[in-house]
Order: sequence, then C-alpha cells, then structure tokens
Amino acid sequence: DLDHSLEPARAIVGNVGDLMVDAIGELTPGTTVAAGIDYVVRTHPVTPLTYLYIVDEEKHLLGVVAMRDLLLARPGQILQDIMVPAPFVFAPDTILPEALKSALAKRHRVYPVVDSSNKLLGMVYSWRLFEYVATELSGQLGATVGLDREERSSTPIWRAFLMRHPWLQVNLLTAFVAAFVVGLFEDTIAQIVVLAVFLPVLAGQSGNTGCQALAITLRSLAVGELEEHSMTQLLRKEVVLGALNGFFVGLVAAAAMYFYSTMTGAADALTLALVVLIAMVGACIGSGLFGVLVPLTLRRFGADPAMASSIFLTTFTDILGMGLMLFLATSLLL
Amino acid sequence: DLDHSLEPARAIVGNVGDLMVDAIGELTPGTTVAAGIDYVVRTHPVTPLTYLYIVDEEKHLLGVVAMRDLLLARPGQILQDIMVPAPFVFAPDTILPEALKSALAKRHRVYPVVDSSNKLLGMVYSWRLFEYVATELSGQLGATVGLDREERSSTPIWRAFLMRHPWLQVNLLTAFVAAFVVGLFEDTIAQIVVLAVFLPVLAGQSGNTGCQALAITLRSLAVGELEEHSMTQLLRKEVVLGALNGFFVGLVAAAAMYFYSTMTGAADALTLALVVLIAMVGACIGSGLFGVLVPLTLRRFGADPAMASSIFLTTFTDILGMGLMLFLATSLLL
Repeated sequence: DLDHSLEPARAIVGNVGDLMVDAIGELTPGTTVAAGIDYVVRTHPVTPLTYLYIVDEEKHLLGVVAMRDLLLARPGQILQDIMVPAPFVFAPDTILPEALKSALAKRHRVYPVVDSSNKLLGMVYSWRLFEYVATELSGQLGATVGLDREERSSTPIWRAFLMRHPWLQVNLLTAFVAAFVVGLFEDTIAQIVVLAVFLPVLAGQSGNTGCQALAITLRSLAVGELEEHSMTQLLRKEVVLGALNGFFVGLVAAAAMYFYSTMTGAADALTLALVVLIAMVGACIGSGLFGVLVPLTLRRFGADPAMASSIFLTTFTDILGMGLMLFLATSLLL
Repeated sequence: DLDHSLEPARAIVGNVGDLMVDAIGELTPGTTVAAGIDYVVRTHPVTPLTYLYIVDEEKHLLGVVAMRDLLLARPGQILQDIMVPAPFVFAPDTILPEALKSALAKRHRVYPVVDSSNKLLGMVYSWRLFEYVATELSGQLGATVGLDREERSSTPIWRAFLMRHPWLQVNLLTAFVAAFVVGLFEDTIAQIVVLAVFLPVLAGQSGNTGCQALAITLRSLAVGELEEHSMTQLLRKEVVLGALNGFFVGLVAAAAMYFYSTMTGAADALTLALVVLIAMVGACIGSGLFGVLVPLTLRRFGADPAMASSIFLTTFTDILGMGLMLFLATSLLL
C-alpha cells in the first residue's frame, strides 16, 4: 500500500555520516586560554582551525570555542568559561536535505557530529554539504531520462554510448507497451483515421502535465520539503491540477478536433470532440497522479527517485492518453 | 548563425556582483596587531569577522589577515607584516558558475570583490554562492516542462494552475504542429494502419534521445563546463551518439515491425522494417542536434536556457520521428 512510500523525504541518498571527517581541535574544559592558544600555534601542519571542541574524558561534547573568542579572552581563563555550551550539532544519520536546510540557516563553516550519547564522532564542513547537494541536483534532470549522474560533456563517446544506450532500450520496451495498446484499436483507427492524427496531441499533453508533477515532486524531495502529511496533500493537489489543466487544454483540443473532423468530412465531429475532451481530462488527472507516484515508488524500492522516472512516467501517460481516446472512440462511435 | 550562441557558458543568470555585500573589517597596512585586535573587540554588534581587509587610502586591496594569524602575531607587529598579499579575489562580473568552481577549489568562507583597479567593492559569502546555485539547479528539471522556478509543493493550487497552464497551452499548440504533419499522411495511415501503431514508438525514442542531449547540455552550462571549442565538440558528439543509439534501437524496433506486420498480414513487412530503421536513425541524429541547439538558442535570445526547453525539443523530435517514418513509408510503399 501507499503508506510505506510516505516516509520522510530521502531524495538525496546519503547522510551526514558519509561526508564526516575526523574532528580536529579537541581540548578538555579545564585547559587555559594560554594553553589553548599554544595548542593552536603548535598544530602542524597548519590546518584551518575554525573551532576548538571542548570534550570530557569520554569524548562527550561540552561546548565549542571560536577562534575569535579565544583571541578576546584573558590568558588565565579556562576554556569552559568562554565556550558556547550545547552547540548546534548533526547526528551521523541526519539526512542531507535536512542538513542542507540547517546549514543555510546557521551558516557555520563546520559542524560537529555527535552520536546519541553526545560523543563527538567527527565534523562535517558546510562546503561539503553544498558541493554534494549541488552535484545531486545537477544530475536530477538527466537522471529522469536515463543519463548517468557521472556523465560530463567531456565523457568519451563510447563510454557515453554504453551509459545511455541501456535506458534507451528500456524506453523502447515501454514504447512497445504503448504501441501494443494502440494496436488493440487498429480497426478503430482504420475506420476513423483522424484519431491517428490526435495520438501525438494526447500523448504530448499528458506527458507534459505528468512531467510538471514529477518535477515538483522531485524538487520537494531534494530540498526536504515533503513530510507524510504534505505528501498526501501533493497527491490531491496534482489530481485537481490535472483535472483543471486537462479541462481547459481539452476544450481547445476538442475545438480543434471538431473543426478538423468537419473539414475532412469525418462522421460525428461533435462526438469526436467530446471524446478528445473526456480523454484529455482523464489522461491529465492520471498524469498528475503518476507524476507523484513514480518517484515515490522508485524511492520505496531503494532506488534514486529521479532515475529513469520520465521513461516510466511517459509509459503510463502514453497508455492513458492514447488508450483512453481510442477506447472512448470505439465505445461511443463504433 | 551559430557563432553567437557559442559564447562562454551563462546558464545561470547573474554574477558575483548580484550577491555582494558591503565589506567589513577594512584596516590600513600600518595598523598594529594590538590595534587590530582592539578593532575586532570593539566591532558592535558582534559580526562573524573572518578576515581583516588591508586597504590603502584609496581602498585598493593590499592583502588580508585571517583571525588566526592575528591571534598568533606579536602585539607590536603591523598588519602589513602578517597579511597575505595579493589574496584571491572575485570581480563583480565574474559569472556564478565560474565563481562556484573557484569556491569549491579555494573553500574560503568569504571572498573580497574588487574592481579592475583592485579597489575593494565589497565581499561575497561562499554560502550565498552555494545557495544560489543549488536553487538554480533545483529549478532546472521543472523549468524544462514549464514549471516556474518559484513553485513549491506548498504553492496554493490556483497560483500553481495560473503558473503552469500557459505552458500547457503552448505545448498544445506545438502538439498541433506535430499533428498537422501526421495529418499530411492520413491517406498513408488509412492504407497501412500498422504505421499508426508505431507512431508512439518513434516519438518516444526520439524524444528520450533528445532529452538526454538536452540534459547534458544544460548540466554543462550550469557548472560552467562549456567553452566555445567544446560546444562544437558537444554538437558533434551528440550527432554521433544519436546515430549509434538510433541504429541499435532502430534494429530492435525494425525487428518488432517485421514480426508485427507479418503477424497482422500487412504487405511488405521487410520494407516497413527498413522504414522504421532509417526513420529511427534519422530521428535520433536530429534529436541529438536539437537537444544541444534548443538551450543554446534560448540563451542566445536572453532567455533561461532550460525554460520550456523540453516542450520545444519534443515538438522537433515528434515532427522528425513521426514525419520521417510516414514520409519514408509513403515514398517507398505507395
């Protein structure tokens, strides 16, 4: 059922633990400021220390001291007196969209990472978070059409071919399914050829409507915007939007069908126009639904929610758009 | 001609100047370390000073002093002696993809921005660069199908409708063009109905091949990877990839056409298979070409290269894929 795919957002695979490095600058709370400065001076090779981490004997994080506060303190003070207690920390399993949101709000240069008992495990630089997320996001568009996240414009042509081709064969297989559905109505098309002319219109509209829903779903997943509650809301919203968009686009398409049928002398122009309108509304509602469900389903199976999502989505929207029109025409006109 | 669209990459609109803030921490080279520390202490409200900027009377940037270096110096030294001269700087018109690349390499917290005569104009925080680029990239996928970069899953339904619907009507108009091309061959379809069954196959394959080329082009633009030289290389590469992918996918599709035609007793199964193969190769070559050219053309006209790019692209690929198959069938079989 749906419930399992409604867990908190995890578009970007990985968590803070994956980007964590060993902490530097661990000192005890009783250390004097003078000794602290001495520690900073003697750190070789010179590393860009931003904070000192104040820990007890069991490595529990008690507080942090910024370089600036060290500078402003009297040499005889102890670090416990000038540290910021209970600093902002990440857990190693904090998911990256959530960590990114915190980093944008806090704007620290580096964050301590602690376990559930507040033991210091390491630290994570904010630039690593940003770099990772930017890399993920720049791969999202390509991933929907089976483009490897690693491919660059400089990737050699044979490697690019081997990376892209398998997904094109998958796309072909899914296109055969859509073709099979169209094939079921060969007799209908033979009798009302104008329907063939409107096949690309139905496929194009439902595909684009679905891709809009897909894009907003992936965007929300990537920036950690979706929670269990709003996921259901998003589904409802995309269904309503699909109905609205399908209706107003369908009206124009129906008018076009009416004039085209009348001009080419096809029988029952008005019924054909109605078929196009109903098919468009139905197809766009389904497209909104699939646009949300395809990435959620991919994620549920542990896959990248963007990966080949557009290929799977257009299979559904092709079948729905073209199948519905041909089915309605067969039912109402033959 | 093409030359104008081959200027250096500018996918992400805007430059460093757009994200610049006033510099804080400007001091003269003759200031003593003690006076420098005094300046830091007296800065109210306490701002997270990372560097002191050492400037002459005309605000030319001579060097920077990190807080840590201030901490380690003797009080009587002057800032000129401990500053890092000729620090890394941005110009206000440095484009953002380029600034991002530098920021990922340098990993400073904040960068000075100077004019061409090295006068300090302000500074830009690295988190602003990352935030901006992440926002741009997270909008890229949606932008290709006419989804506004501002739309979130929380955007009210009527606002979402008004933002999305115009592009769906544009998509409908472009679909009519594709339908018109199919309509030119109505007689052909009436005589060889199996062609209608293969319309979605051609449209789907050329569309997906084109979207792969589109995605790699937009990705390269966004991360500042394309220069004049490699843009032409990318075009050549996508054309060759289109030919290769079209050939191997076309072979499978041709085999499917052969068996389907034989099964359903259509005449000239072998010629129909050949038609599918040639159409697929031609359509995929064209798709690779359009996938690169559509975003470059949008950019040339000053538009966001991603905006509605998929809508324009699939118009071309639809016409090319379906038109070529129907044209070849008409030429060779009727």
